[in-house]
Amino acid sequence: MTMMMHDLAGADADLRFSPYCWSVKFALAHKGLSVETIPWRFTEKAVIAFSGQKLVPVIRDGERVVSDSWKIAEYLEETHPEPALFGTGAACAHALFIRHWADAVMVPGIARCIVRDIWEIADPRDKPYFRETREAWLGSSLEQLHADRDQHAGVFRASLGPVRSVLKTQPFLGGTSPTYADHMVAGMLMWARCASRFPMLTDDDSVGTWFGRMMDQYGGLGRSAKVA
Amino acid sequence: MTMMMHDLAGADADLRFSPYCWSVKFALAHKGLSVETIPWRFTEKAVIAFSGQKLVPVIRDGERVVSDSWKIAEYLEETHPEPALFGTGAACAHALFIRHWADAVMVPGIARCIVRDIWEIADPRDKPYFRETREAWLGSSLEQLHADRDQHAGVFRASLGPVRSVLKTQPFLGGTSPTYADHMVAGMLMWARCASRFPMLTDDDSVGTWFGRMMDQYGGLGRSAKVA
Repeated sequence: MTMMMHDLAGADADLRFSPYCWSVKFALAHKGLSVETIPWRFTEKAVIAFSGQKLVPVIRDGERVVSDSWKIAEYLEETHPEPALFGTGAACAHALFIRHWADAVMVPGIARCIVRDIWEIADPRDKPYFRETREAWLGSSLEQLHADRDQHAGVFRASLGPVRSVLKTQPFLGGTSPTYADHMVAGMLMWARCASRFPMLTDDDSVGTWFGRMMDQYGGLGRSAKVA
Repeated sequence: MTMMMHDLAGADADLRFSPYCWSVKFALAHKGLSVETIPWRFTEKAVIAFSGQKLVPVIRDGERVVSDSWKIAEYLEETHPEPALFGTGAACAHALFIRHWADAVMVPGIARCIVRDIWEIADPRDKPYFRETREAWLGSSLEQLHADRDQHAGVFRASLGPVRSVLKTQPFLGGTSPTYADHMVAGMLMWARCASRFPMLTDDDSVGTWFGRMMDQYGGLGRSAKVA
């Protein structure tokens, strides 16, 4: 049976931009699993109440419901071990650091640059909720963040130093081929790519070269996604 | 045959504070390998010229000479696979990210707080070299950095968010037991512990609790080290 997944969408149901949903879509494609995605908007909390929480991604695999992208990755690894998302040994434990680094550094770094653009493409029903929660989180108006985004982008690009350093000696964060570490970081960049035309990376950035490779994986899953 | 290792020392030859040497000392202890350390000062470049470069740690294992803490860890893993420093699969590839994160974030974060203290304990022959290179690197005088260190410490503590998040769900960065990821991050904190009395962490920080566990590993190797 095909899995079902609630996937964040904009006013345009084909515009899918959640970084965490992208991580899971890459992970599913990595394992060769098909998924039927259901567009979901920020304020449709009632629609996913069956999952016991209020955020996407949520997957339904037969009778089983799993939310939280990391837990979904662990679930997929457990139920479909090959090809591995992590590998054995400490690979999953170490990837957890990359997950929390991406959450702590990439999420606010990208949000500051594109949050106004996300508001633009959000479903009209979501806009008041989105503005209120994001302005409270980021401590600034969407318009002020937008006005300062070149400066925020500079800070964000500098923060990617560890990714850049890793890519000097291996083609993927996972080594010779992508792992869930690549899916998480590429998922963050898919968020910016799909929701905004703002260039998060400069043209000469090796992180961009790697991201291009990631977009071309799995039959061009990332490359072919609809952008704003 | 016991390995030999050149290990950074202060004016007091028993004061060993290099973060990279500490990573390697933890890794050697993890594998149950004994090592004879040779105190080395910053300006004794000629003494390690045999290694083809100018930095410690340098290990000599019979005929084999290896420098660079990461390369030494890889060498130890190759020559003495068990107990593993990384484990198989993508564990080493993922740990490389933690290495580069520690270099990019922890090294300057700690240096800004304790660099003046390191200058204090440095061998008199090293002091002019140390001051010149570190002030150029950090873009400030040692005295100014010292004066602002409470502020720098706040930034450093915030930057440890990903470590703190990981430790909420597992006792070590490597999972249920330490890996070289733990050795690298604990090595950085040993640097501050041995070279300075400045508290890099607040008493209630879970990173400090983990660091305590790391200092108690391997017969209390870290705990028993001489401090300034």
